Amino acid sequence: MKPSATLDFFFDFASPYACLSALRIRALAQKTGVPIRWRPFLLGPIFQAEGLKDSPLNVFPVRGAYARRDVARRAARHGFSVRFPSGFPRLSVLAARVALVALREGWGEAFSEAVFRAEFQRDEDIASPEVVGALVRAEGQTPERVLQAAQVPEVKAALRAEVEAAQAAGIFGAPSFRVDGELFWGDDRLEEALDWALGRR
Amino acid sequence: MKPSATLDFFFDFASPYACLSALRIRALAQKTGVPIRWRPFLLGPIFQAEGLKDSPLNVFPVRGAYARRDVARRAARHGFSVRFPSGFPRLSVLAARVALVALREGWGEAFSEAVFRAEFQRDEDIASPEVVGALVRAEGQTPERVLQAAQVPEVKAALRAEVEAAQAAGIFGAPSFRVDGELFWGDDRLEEALDWALGRR
Repeated sequence: MKPSATLDFFFDFASPYACLSALRIRALAQKTGVPIRWRPFLLGPIFQAEGLKDSPLNVFPVRGAYARRDVARRAARHGFSVRFPSGFPRLSVLAARVALVALREGWGEAFSEAVFRAEFQRDEDIASPEVVGALVRAEGQTPERVLQAAQVPEVKAALRAEVEAAQAAGIFGAPSFRVDGELFWGDDRLEEALDWALGRR
Repeated sequence: MKPSATLDFFFDFASPYACLSALRIRALAQKTGVPIRWRPFLLGPIFQAEGLKDSPLNVFPVRGAYARRDVARRAARHGFSVRFPSGFPRLSVLAARVALVALREGWGEAFSEAVFRAEFQRDEDIASPEVVGALVRAEGQTPERVLQAAQVPEVKAALRAEVEAAQAAGIFGAPSFRVDGELFWGDDRLEEALDWALGRR
């Protein structure tokens, strides 16, 4: 078999469509053999650069209404449940910083999946250090150590750099997948991005 | 086999993503047995109601740049070629009115496909009566008769009613597919909409 290109999975923890991908991408990676690089980033600064003061799903309520139905329907098709949280979008900066630390330490994929489940299946507010701390603990880590490690200047700068990398890649929404310089936007394009990684174009 | 629900295919001739669906939906209808109802409408009034003065692909240039690459790549995946026209978006009201007449007379699907090909494969301006007239003639119809029939108040009102029907259905982009009250937005959701029509949910 031809070696596969790596797929960069850009996600914002605030995005329900990113959740749809996060909850199935590990199984797809295993099935296809495509290496996945999980890359948390923040959409807020990217929306702002486009002149949007909020998520497009709030700025354009007709799209927001569609997305609410669409996300639930698509989750059911995937075999799980995802719903918009009671407050949308949640502030995702803390979870993203913790995920950066966790990814470096090798427990970041399971943690990221757990964050998405907390937010979009149990309606927990992932902006809260208590919520994030409990998710850290559930991964067998010490919340105090990790929350502290996530707030050092170097990690803050690393997240800003990821936002800039996303912007430089032409990313404007989440999830986005990048393979060999090709960009694919949306949970509904994950299979296409995997095909691209496998050389099926 | 269970009888299938009808799939309403809402399209604006200005939309390159609608073109991607139009050029393959007849083959998919044949393969799946799902009856398709072609419904030309106009996105302009719907964008305006959202406070957008132009296509989102122009208002948000990063999305526009992505769409240019994405449309070409997706067309190649489908086995044909589609590219943005030299002027985007084209005024599609004339073509939509003619398509309404043609659909009533039974030659509207082939004509609609021809309009999309002229615009997105040969870069012809579908706002021009000469261009549309030539496409009408290619379908074996008399341009003078059809162009006149397309401009009567009843047809103009019928197109306005279609825009209102799209708006009432929560449509905000093209193509959109509607099956049993369920809405699916985007060429990448056509297969899912067909599955829905077939009862595979």
